[in-house]
Amino acid sequence: MIVTVTLNAALDITYRTPALVPHTTHRVSEVAERPGGKGLNVARVLSALGHETVVTGFAGGRTGDVLRELLGDRGYGAGAGAGGSRSRPVDALVPISGSTRRTLAVVDETSGDTTQLNEPGPTISSAEWSDFLGAYERLLTGADAVALCGSLPPGIHVGAYAELIRRARAAGVPVLLDTSGEPLRRGVAARPDLVKPNADELARLTGSREPLRAARDARRRGAHAVIASLGPDGILAATPDGIWQATPPASVKGNPTGAGDSAVAGLLSGLVEHLPWPARLARAVALATATVLAPAAGEFDAEAYEELLPRVTVTEHPGP
Amino acid sequence: MIVTVTLNAALDITYRTPALVPHTTHRVSEVAERPGGKGLNVARVLSALGHETVVTGFAGGRTGDVLRELLGDRGYGAGAGAGGSRSRPVDALVPISGSTRRTLAVVDETSGDTTQLNEPGPTISSAEWSDFLGAYERLLTGADAVALCGSLPPGIHVGAYAELIRRARAAGVPVLLDTSGEPLRRGVAARPDLVKPNADELARLTGSREPLRAARDARRRGAHAVIASLGPDGILAATPDGIWQATPPASVKGNPTGAGDSAVAGLLSGLVEHLPWPARLARAVALATATVLAPAAGEFDAEAYEELLPRVTVTEHPGP
Repeated sequence: MIVTVTLNAALDITYRTPALVPHTTHRVSEVAERPGGKGLNVARVLSALGHETVVTGFAGGRTGDVLRELLGDRGYGAGAGAGGSRSRPVDALVPISGSTRRTLAVVDETSGDTTQLNEPGPTISSAEWSDFLGAYERLLTGADAVALCGSLPPGIHVGAYAELIRRARAAGVPVLLDTSGEPLRRGVAARPDLVKPNADELARLTGSREPLRAARDARRRGAHAVIASLGPDGILAATPDGIWQATPPASVKGNPTGAGDSAVAGLLSGLVEHLPWPARLARAVALATATVLAPAAGEFDAEAYEELLPRVTVTEHPGP
Repeated sequence: MIVTVTLNAALDITYRTPALVPHTTHRVSEVAERPGGKGLNVARVLSALGHETVVTGFAGGRTGDVLRELLGDRGYGAGAGAGGSRSRPVDALVPISGSTRRTLAVVDETSGDTTQLNEPGPTISSAEWSDFLGAYERLLTGADAVALCGSLPPGIHVGAYAELIRRARAAGVPVLLDTSGEPLRRGVAARPDLVKPNADELARLTGSREPLRAARDARRRGAHAVIASLGPDGILAATPDGIWQATPPASVKGNPTGAGDSAVAGLLSGLVEHLPWPARLARAVALATATVLAPAAGEFDAEAYEELLPRVTVTEHPGP
């Protein structure tokens, strides 16, 4: 069983409108709602890949109710085209008194360009954080791996991910961290098994915009393996066993929302299946690319994934 | 008791953000929610003026639940600065299976400019419309006046307001219509006691952009009295008893959202208090101006209202 943690979960709302023009009035032509937050996206892809997955984090208020209802919906656990027959992530979200935040994507129908408006999220009390730590410890006892994903909500101390990493390591559960800024810096120092920064996050962490140099630096700071997502260039992996670059067969056009989360699902599933690094990386790149190709943000195109997987190029870097 | 009808009620959400830039990501600094829709705004101002008010229309889903909770909240029935001691509108909204729509205002913190995104609203079934007609008939038996406000939701026939006007007239209850487009055209033909179009709505109805000519034309089409809101120029009233223009003492800067709804509340309260036309018009203009001056959209500044009221100029038009 794989556990994903989303401390700042969201109800993702998508509005479609002909074109967003500031300071005018728009009639929204289409409204869609789905569970949001990186860890929930990762869990959905893991479920579609056939892995038992449990989601935890926080949910509260009316928006939290909607999020949990949608989590339980048939079809949530499926990649686009994969049908609704796969299992769904198990809901182990911890209730809070505040309301789960909304994130709004306004999509221009003509260009497909998206404007994003993210609510800050509810403040978590210290009692709620303690409730979460209890739930987390219980989940760790049955976990094959855990992913810590996304930003921290107000009220949670900046070293929270470092604390969760130490607890996972103490329980002997491999832990992946996917966050940014100071929570990433603190988390890396707690020696997670994997971190998955994008190029910007890696540059902010290390001060270097040269991915290989930066990934090596992040390893020296504490991360056992650093998987840097480089957008259309695929991913660069600096691991104890070697350094690899995995590249998609061709650059694709589409919506990159959720591509990083799909890559995390690929890495985690490969980890618990004990695949060698090149196979894990190929899976991560194929899933990320199939996510860019899917019509809905954060879904992945299951047929495209199967077709892309054998065509991802993985090259080992000769250096140390 | 005054009844206000809001067939397309909304949960009004306001986001504050430094400046809206299309196709980028924004962190929302502040989120506010309140009951929305013209008839609910009118009812809030009527309550603040001390009038017993009942709101009806439709509410459903999680957003409908939030709307009804906020309607019941202490302080909802108060103008800004008027304190929370006034009565609140009574909730007689009819439940529906669909979800009440949201309307989102994104306010740029630097300029105060607002970008509006309005969801279309749930489709009303014919059974739900019948439920509403039953509730409406029961409310008419105790009503001193009724206001029909705003757009029609999907599923409601374009002659709906005309039907509601005929039923109010049959019950001997004075009826005010505040809508636009084809529902206004059909409604006017059903001979309402008052219509309150703005200059654009009046021009679309009559084909004339000259307010006096257009107001007279709208009277010929069926409206007993036409009160045209002319923004900073105040209002022009074409009535069976004469024609008046009411003008605020000075043009004011602020947020005009809800100013027209406050004017409707002024007209209705003056009607049930049997005030002469000039006093009704002065009240409508003073309330609308005090709404522009209030810090929150759709509130009115009670002190400003008291101070403005004696300073509104009402001049009678000499012509027939």
